[in-house]
Amino acid sequence: MDDTGNRAVSLAELDRFCRAALTAIGADAATADAATRAMLHATRLGVDSHGVRLLPHYLTALEGGRLNRTPQVRTVGGLGAVEVLDADHAQGALGAYRGMERAVDLAGRFGVGAVAVRNNSHFGAAGAYAMAAAERGFIGLAFCNSDSFVRLHDGAERFHGTNPMAVGVPVAGGDPWLLDMATSAIPYNRVLLYRSLGVELPDHVASDAEGVDTRDAHAAQMLAPLGSEFGFKGAALAGVAEILSAVLTGMRLSFDIPLMEGPDFAQPRLLGAFLLALNPDAFLDRAAFDAGMHRYLDRLRGSLAAQGGRVMAPGDREWAVAAQRDVEGVRLDPATAEAFAAIAARHGIAPPG
Amino acid sequence: MDDTGNRAVSLAELDRFCRAALTAIGADAATADAATRAMLHATRLGVDSHGVRLLPHYLTALEGGRLNRTPQVRTVGGLGAVEVLDADHAQGALGAYRGMERAVDLAGRFGVGAVAVRNNSHFGAAGAYAMAAAERGFIGLAFCNSDSFVRLHDGAERFHGTNPMAVGVPVAGGDPWLLDMATSAIPYNRVLLYRSLGVELPDHVASDAEGVDTRDAHAAQMLAPLGSEFGFKGAALAGVAEILSAVLTGMRLSFDIPLMEGPDFAQPRLLGAFLLALNPDAFLDRAAFDAGMHRYLDRLRGSLAAQGGRVMAPGDREWAVAAQRDVEGVRLDPATAEAFAAIAARHGIAPPG
Repeated sequence: MDDTGNRAVSLAELDRFCRAALTAIGADAATADAATRAMLHATRLGVDSHGVRLLPHYLTALEGGRLNRTPQVRTVGGLGAVEVLDADHAQGALGAYRGMERAVDLAGRFGVGAVAVRNNSHFGAAGAYAMAAAERGFIGLAFCNSDSFVRLHDGAERFHGTNPMAVGVPVAGGDPWLLDMATSAIPYNRVLLYRSLGVELPDHVASDAEGVDTRDAHAAQMLAPLGSEFGFKGAALAGVAEILSAVLTGMRLSFDIPLMEGPDFAQPRLLGAFLLALNPDAFLDRAAFDAGMHRYLDRLRGSLAAQGGRVMAPGDREWAVAAQRDVEGVRLDPATAEAFAAIAARHGIAPPG
Repeated sequence: MDDTGNRAVSLAELDRFCRAALTAIGADAATADAATRAMLHATRLGVDSHGVRLLPHYLTALEGGRLNRTPQVRTVGGLGAVEVLDADHAQGALGAYRGMERAVDLAGRFGVGAVAVRNNSHFGAAGAYAMAAAERGFIGLAFCNSDSFVRLHDGAERFHGTNPMAVGVPVAGGDPWLLDMATSAIPYNRVLLYRSLGVELPDHVASDAEGVDTRDAHAAQMLAPLGSEFGFKGAALAGVAEILSAVLTGMRLSFDIPLMEGPDFAQPRLLGAFLLALNPDAFLDRAAFDAGMHRYLDRLRGSLAAQGGRVMAPGDREWAVAAQRDVEGVRLDPATAEAFAAIAARHGIAPPG
């Protein structure tokens, strides 16, 4: 137990609990599997904002009708190395995993594959899908938009969502190079996590309802785009995610998406997602690719650090957390622990322990 | 004339002068055309750091042998919607324009096309190639790495290049949505421009030889990655450009690339480039795509601005400059004006006027 009174629980127990809870409210096996896999990806890597704390949210959305508990994901369009999937209002991880599976299959045949997913929903950590490509030896890119919560550069109202982008690159014999970033200064789910934990936000990452900077997670009503005085770059990266995942899918723009938090949990939110895979073998010998990644990472990790700092490759911090959590498990934040106890009691499921 | 004593010169005159100078030193028509087109793209849009001020540099590299004055660009590999081009040590704009042409052709057939360019060189403004795709009605992405000049997050030595990325998206009846950004806080060429202009750098964008922040453009020995305290995101984006343009092409990593500035101008630098095109028609009806972009841009440009600020879409600032320069021409910075006078005298070419 830590000083919050929460015991550490194993990842295997969290996996069991998420699947059991999703199944208990009527989600089919594919939905329970995809949602659990994506949440556990995030929790294992320390991306707690997108981890199992989202389980109560997904249960509410599945029970309310926003999400389809038994979706039929199907191909509805495309051309050559492009496919368009209709996710049938599935929990977002299902549409996104299916999309990346298809993108990788296409990249196996065509060297590159791009998949637009329609009628999807919140897919959690974008890195889960980039990771899925890297696990198969492909470079994977994943993009999504989300309900408006980020102001523009020099803007004073919510415009883009936190619009994440993720890139995963396979590294022979090791964990992938894995970038998973919000195009906002911080992810919105971190605001929610910090509210639960009672922690102050960093400077210049969030604004109150009038657009004035604040460090109070409870007062935060919008986020700043990545880049501080160069926030036009962060806002533009949000635009890349917006165009690929919403315009190119014909789905809702951020400012048209009902709030993730509700109050409406009955209507599908009509989110899109965009997945792209590249097959290194189409570009050069695999041995040369692998050697290039190793040389790049070896030099990066050996690069001179500033005093008190440490240089890391994207994902390094996360793999270290994963190695620890594989052994020690994870302590849930208080709000999540409380919600899990209620779910366990309601459905007669053993709480994760 | 402005207060520096420089007259404004027309874009047409700059175009003529660049072509004439390139031709005078033996560059073939394809090289003169591509290099001029890329430089004029940047100068027209106000990206002066990557504009015609690079002409003396390219002339030196073409005469020195670093660049091939009569390159044979050819396809050397690929699979399906992927092609690998060998640029035969061409001036970088030639390899990059050819690469994007092929990517667009592939995307016309397969919905998406990806091209790795080997044996290329400095390609100037990445946005030129994203723009080339957008002009044909496709979404274009362009990436390149460059010689080390940017420290890692928490790093204290040069590691990545300024590793630009560009994305261009066609907008029916208007200028494209156009992002062209260094993954450093500012582009290296802006340091050179500020040295020439005697202007101070912004805070926290550059460090001296010991890695300490400086605003003196002459003292700047490395740049910071985009993102300030979230510089791990900027460093990771640099990594995306590095992996796509160098690892996937089998070309040099940033820290292996000889300095752009020389002193060696005889040896090819073995840079790669990566171009990707997406065909909107493979994803949805063109009318729906066009309507989506219009709705997105209309709402973006109408979004509430902070006091004293102005919200803009990527490219808006540049299109405004272009409209002005199309009419009024452009004033060269003093170092470039002086270099152009010397080139004119040496080759008996009329200076731009």
